[in-house]
Amino acid sequence: MPLQPDRTIAELRELQELTGDENGAQRVAWTDTWERAREWLRGKVAGLPVEEEIDQAGNQWFTLRGASERTLLIGGHMDSVPNGGWLDGCLNVMAGVEVLRRLAADGTPAVTVRLVNWADEEGARFGRSLFGSSAAAGSMRDQDELRLLADRDGVSLPHALAEHGVDLDHATDARSQLESAGAYLELHIEQGPVLEDLDLPLGAVLGTFGVERHRITWTGQAAHAGSTPMDRRRDALAGAAKLALEIRGIAARAGDGAVCTSGGVVCRPGIVTSVVETAEQLLDQRHLDAGRLAAMLAEAKEASERFAAEENLEVSWDRIWSIEPILFHPELVDMCDASIEDVAGASHRLPSGPLHDAAEVARAGIPTVMMFVQSLRGLSHTKLEDTKPEHLELAVEALDHLTTEALAWVASLA
Amino acid sequence: MPLQPDRTIAELRELQELTGDENGAQRVAWTDTWERAREWLRGKVAGLPVEEEIDQAGNQWFTLRGASERTLLIGGHMDSVPNGGWLDGCLNVMAGVEVLRRLAADGTPAVTVRLVNWADEEGARFGRSLFGSSAAAGSMRDQDELRLLADRDGVSLPHALAEHGVDLDHATDARSQLESAGAYLELHIEQGPVLEDLDLPLGAVLGTFGVERHRITWTGQAAHAGSTPMDRRRDALAGAAKLALEIRGIAARAGDGAVCTSGGVVCRPGIVTSVVETAEQLLDQRHLDAGRLAAMLAEAKEASERFAAEENLEVSWDRIWSIEPILFHPELVDMCDASIEDVAGASHRLPSGPLHDAAEVARAGIPTVMMFVQSLRGLSHTKLEDTKPEHLELAVEALDHLTTEALAWVASLA
Repeated sequence: MPLQPDRTIAELRELQELTGDENGAQRVAWTDTWERAREWLRGKVAGLPVEEEIDQAGNQWFTLRGASERTLLIGGHMDSVPNGGWLDGCLNVMAGVEVLRRLAADGTPAVTVRLVNWADEEGARFGRSLFGSSAAAGSMRDQDELRLLADRDGVSLPHALAEHGVDLDHATDARSQLESAGAYLELHIEQGPVLEDLDLPLGAVLGTFGVERHRITWTGQAAHAGSTPMDRRRDALAGAAKLALEIRGIAARAGDGAVCTSGGVVCRPGIVTSVVETAEQLLDQRHLDAGRLAAMLAEAKEASERFAAEENLEVSWDRIWSIEPILFHPELVDMCDASIEDVAGASHRLPSGPLHDAAEVARAGIPTVMMFVQSLRGLSHTKLEDTKPEHLELAVEALDHLTTEALAWVASLA
Repeated sequence: MPLQPDRTIAELRELQELTGDENGAQRVAWTDTWERAREWLRGKVAGLPVEEEIDQAGNQWFTLRGASERTLLIGGHMDSVPNGGWLDGCLNVMAGVEVLRRLAADGTPAVTVRLVNWADEEGARFGRSLFGSSAAAGSMRDQDELRLLADRDGVSLPHALAEHGVDLDHATDARSQLESAGAYLELHIEQGPVLEDLDLPLGAVLGTFGVERHRITWTGQAAHAGSTPMDRRRDALAGAAKLALEIRGIAARAGDGAVCTSGGVVCRPGIVTSVVETAEQLLDQRHLDAGRLAAMLAEAKEASERFAAEENLEVSWDRIWSIEPILFHPELVDMCDASIEDVAGASHRLPSGPLHDAAEVARAGIPTVMMFVQSLRGLSHTKLEDTKPEHLELAVEALDHLTTEALAWVASLA
């Protein structure tokens, strides 16, 4: 049976019909709608010679036995944010299903191929993303914090998981799933504008950005807006404003797609009649190179101290979160790039800003690569999320092409 | 009986003892504590040949009849903010009491002298400042809005006023109080750092700043902090940051003590992972010259449009409030300046950033001047508010001196 990329599009529309509404996709993990999506997926692969398994973290695996125990993994996630798009996560799974069909029709593959539907990539209900993949990758270290999480209705995370057969205390037992993995492939919509700007359907992903997130607190002195001469002020907003503008130069100097974002400033007292006493500024910096990420952070800190001196302010930094860059496997990146060129005539290598399940798998030491397909206007996490049908079909073809190459590569290593 | 400036200080401390606590002054208008302060004031003037009257707006008047019906007014306010200072408002009243004592001891003055304790200058309970003085000045036009105001316990403004004998519907009948007024004098702490910087105890106030207050809304596009290249962003915070810095140049170019303040920026969505879509910025601009204030506003608007174009944003302006500059009477300013020089050896002319009851009286067409006494560290509206005792004594002496001059001036005009 030859690959039918248009079937993937038809199935994605069917899924949206089944699990979405007029506001978009509603497949939030650990809900009935999500369970319905998993059941529907089960039905889609029912005719194939694959075994299904739900692991201890709730990940749904479909295994096509090959000549070798070594496995090639293809992954995605059926869960969505509330009012989400029709592609984010489930495109990967359904393209994987189509590839499984083609492989099964071709007879026993050289190595075992497994399709995984990761549980709770989005973290939409409890605020903890990459749940299933981090459990399988062995990087989940926050069970004690997870135990205390509750959704907005007060339902605890452990309780919600238990309703879907997952015991939080044993979630990391899912780690055994990756034991024989030789490579991991993940297709995803880009969720950014780079490929659309380049007028290219597909790109090979170099890795996921390292991230440094900080809260920067500027402290000056509240003072009456009417009676305090300009040269006597210690205006905390001035420090934040200077840094909000300075980070553009920092990103430009770091190069290679570096991004710096000040997502907001909270001013106190924040009233029209007072100079700002404290300004709490959010800063997010990302780079694919750990050294240059560190340099970006150092440059921002240095600039903040210079601005604090200029404005007679105090400045302090608190790290909110950070993660190192995760580079995908160079041979697999080359393979992905070549597959895209074969199918689409041209390719582009780009970093991923958002994190993905692939980052967790790569952190676990499994050779990994992702393929991006163009997102119209870079939109995701909204019902406006879309990709041209011809690009979706190319994506399924390129993933299939890459699977053939990666399968041979894993077989050669085994 | 000669003037006893040290008695003013002792009485202010007595008042603080009676109506303050460890957090500062608690004489919020329309409360029992405020009523107690008015009762205490009544006792302080009890031995003098003055008549007391509470007008329809709750203002407390003490009249020392003179040879003429023409009146010279001296004003202040006993009400404070919660946790306020020991001087703001009541220094003026108690210095006026001391001047009344000296005048009464000197025999019948050439014109009638009236001391007024304005009701609710601070607007601390209902958010409406200058209540009593605006009623008397005839500039109160917001009775319909005042009727709807309530304090944080849900008590309506009309109800609270009625408990102190004031009928909101008749408050503006207080206007008759200013009918025969020939001049108005008000002493006040500076509430700013100018005199302290100049190492001067006292200054003559030129007038109160005109004020333009606006809310500026910058609109860009929310976008993922990780996947949106720097050159594709429409960052609303960038517009606000540029304007927050630009207003310093605007104030400097306008000169003469001009001030521009951005009291805060509210960012949406305001999360670390998103470019800012909308930034609501507060702007307060003040100048003593109406034309230059208008030019400052025009320059800020022009700059905002330039920044919006640079950053691919939309920008819109909403006026929150404005008031024209109110200039005090030039002859009275000269007289105030000369009185200060006589008493303290040196004087300085300066604008007032904050509004005061004097601005309402001046708007009503009564020749007006204010005298400022140095505020330590420019602090007010806090229990840390303070002024050196020797400066307080000089202030009482200079007000007495000015009263003598102004009294002769009013007499000469009558």
